[in-house]
Amino acid sequence: MSFSIGIGPNTRKSPYFDATVADGVQSFSVYNHMYLPAHFGDPDAEYDRLVNGVTMWDVGAQRQVEIRGADAEKLVDYLCARDVKSSRVGYGRYVPVCNHDGILINDPVLLRLAADRFWLSIADSDIELWARAIAAERDYDVEIHEPDVSPLAVQGPRAPAVVEQLFGDWIHELTYFAFRETELDGIPLVVARSGWSKQGGFELYLRDSKRGGELWERVKTAGAAQDIGPGAPNDPERIESGLLSYGADCRLQVDPADPFELGLEAFVDLDGEHDFIGKRALREIAARGPARRRVGFYLEGDTVSGVTHPLPVLQAGQRVGSLTEVAHSPRLGRNIATGLLASEIAAAARDLEVILPGGPRRLEVAALPFIR
Amino acid sequence: MSFSIGIGPNTRKSPYFDATVADGVQSFSVYNHMYLPAHFGDPDAEYDRLVNGVTMWDVGAQRQVEIRGADAEKLVDYLCARDVKSSRVGYGRYVPVCNHDGILINDPVLLRLAADRFWLSIADSDIELWARAIAAERDYDVEIHEPDVSPLAVQGPRAPAVVEQLFGDWIHELTYFAFRETELDGIPLVVARSGWSKQGGFELYLRDSKRGGELWERVKTAGAAQDIGPGAPNDPERIESGLLSYGADCRLQVDPADPFELGLEAFVDLDGEHDFIGKRALREIAARGPARRRVGFYLEGDTVSGVTHPLPVLQAGQRVGSLTEVAHSPRLGRNIATGLLASEIAAAARDLEVILPGGPRRLEVAALPFIR
Repeated sequence: MSFSIGIGPNTRKSPYFDATVADGVQSFSVYNHMYLPAHFGDPDAEYDRLVNGVTMWDVGAQRQVEIRGADAEKLVDYLCARDVKSSRVGYGRYVPVCNHDGILINDPVLLRLAADRFWLSIADSDIELWARAIAAERDYDVEIHEPDVSPLAVQGPRAPAVVEQLFGDWIHELTYFAFRETELDGIPLVVARSGWSKQGGFELYLRDSKRGGELWERVKTAGAAQDIGPGAPNDPERIESGLLSYGADCRLQVDPADPFELGLEAFVDLDGEHDFIGKRALREIAARGPARRRVGFYLEGDTVSGVTHPLPVLQAGQRVGSLTEVAHSPRLGRNIATGLLASEIAAAARDLEVILPGGPRRLEVAALPFIR
Repeated sequence: MSFSIGIGPNTRKSPYFDATVADGVQSFSVYNHMYLPAHFGDPDAEYDRLVNGVTMWDVGAQRQVEIRGADAEKLVDYLCARDVKSSRVGYGRYVPVCNHDGILINDPVLLRLAADRFWLSIADSDIELWARAIAAERDYDVEIHEPDVSPLAVQGPRAPAVVEQLFGDWIHELTYFAFRETELDGIPLVVARSGWSKQGGFELYLRDSKRGGELWERVKTAGAAQDIGPGAPNDPERIESGLLSYGADCRLQVDPADPFELGLEAFVDLDGEHDFIGKRALREIAARGPARRRVGFYLEGDTVSGVTHPLPVLQAGQRVGSLTEVAHSPRLGRNIATGLLASEIAAAARDLEVILPGGPRRLEVAALPFIR
């Protein structure tokens, strides 16, 4: 199935939009009400650059919710299932955000820019509305808005060479999730060691949307010696690496899941004094054990390039889980998938299947990540 | 510019998705994290059906936020700038929803299903998160969720004949925005006299997503005698009719606007006892007068089929407003547009222009709607 996407004023363009068009983007999806490149027409090359070289992605759709003011720490700490008070300026932290029922509603990276200033770098749901409602009803002394900040990701094992070329040696001092405010010939930026892959890399948080084309060209030029090329968040790699995609793997309105089901227990702070939205519900869930768990699956048979929507996982015709995304792993040479499986189903179960358009496929449960 | 849209699990499919594919949908946009048909490849025929005949639209992306319980009325009344307490069961009401600063964050139709049960039939922002946050922080006794409800719109002057054929004579008793719960051979529905056009028509709120294909076929068959055909929310008609498109004409994060700027003052209840979010801010805005006003524009010169994103409106090179959407009006034979213009600019101003890819175009200010 192939359809065109309407390019109109109801969906926002990234500051890199024109540059990605010039560089041959073929397909978009929509994320946070913004066009997000999906691919540039050569999936094998795009995967190869990410895993063996270096790639650049327009991830401007990863919007920031800025929270600043006297009560900023108090608010962010209350919004996040993970403790925020211990976070340090200049470091990011992956923070599940749950509703009052303990259901995940986003999984941002939190960047602490100052003692009283934060960015929630969000997945695909309107967390600005959530944060504003909570802050206003609690009468917290904060200002909340979406700043003019649009990340460009440089990912892959050769990313450090490209980013060093642009910014200098100090970029090697950044540990994972550390960041620094800087500029590039006057282009204001935050440079972070982060990104939605497990291949290593950086995100350049552009702070002036008028300079997106310029930044894109600078990265491209600096990366030429490393054979940099354009790409986009990569489904095969993210499944291999076990990364969660809020909106694909779960969504409040589609397939609500709690952080324990999703394997995020390390980022939920149930024991301390830290009070946060959903804590009471999550304590109950933790006490009785999550109903499902996030797993990987191998799919037997011919190559499967993807599924168009989540599919039920069946055992003897009964639904026992869901398969949310599938891809063919170039490194494993197998079809891999991720999804949620009822906790009582054994990992060794050999009788699970999913119905694809071409017929049923046997599933084998696998631990996540597929590749460490 | 033409690009494909990624069809994947991160964006939801409507229950009518397969039916629209079978009937030749060519292009989608994304609305409330769901695919929304944009067109079926023949814009002239689609417009003509809407204005002179009858058309059917998959508007499943117009999601519902259901609010029920002892405090449902109290919560909805607090969320909406328009009074809700006086609303009657069986009737819809157009209700601006603002944040605490008085900025519009959605403009749903509110359906009152029972004294203690409502649907907010929402535009493109995550109002479920907003409503849940407010309700939880105020400790209101309500349940909030997104029900399995997906509207199919039947629009155009011959819509009553089609809907009568399906449901019987009583549909003529429905006044504008009135609705009734019913079924069609066991398919559970709410039938409402409403829709996002000014051509008249109905929305069939399907209450069982497994039966989308069946309902689509039933409507198609019933409409055959009226030459029904598929279509989608229609830009030329909505601009002619002056309908607001939240997300295109304004959005909190892109071009925040208050309901007075948007010409929605008739739906804002500033004088009564009714307490609602944003009221204090809106009183201040009303007292000093809105900074901008929503207007229509004629664009001189060759036919313009659309713009890809909002554009600044210029006077002597200075930005004095924004043009958010443009289309060629078949009925007026002119290019028409809608946007926001600084209040101090006279409607008779003859020196306004907008820069299109092909060069500058003179604008003439017009009252909305263009066609009544």
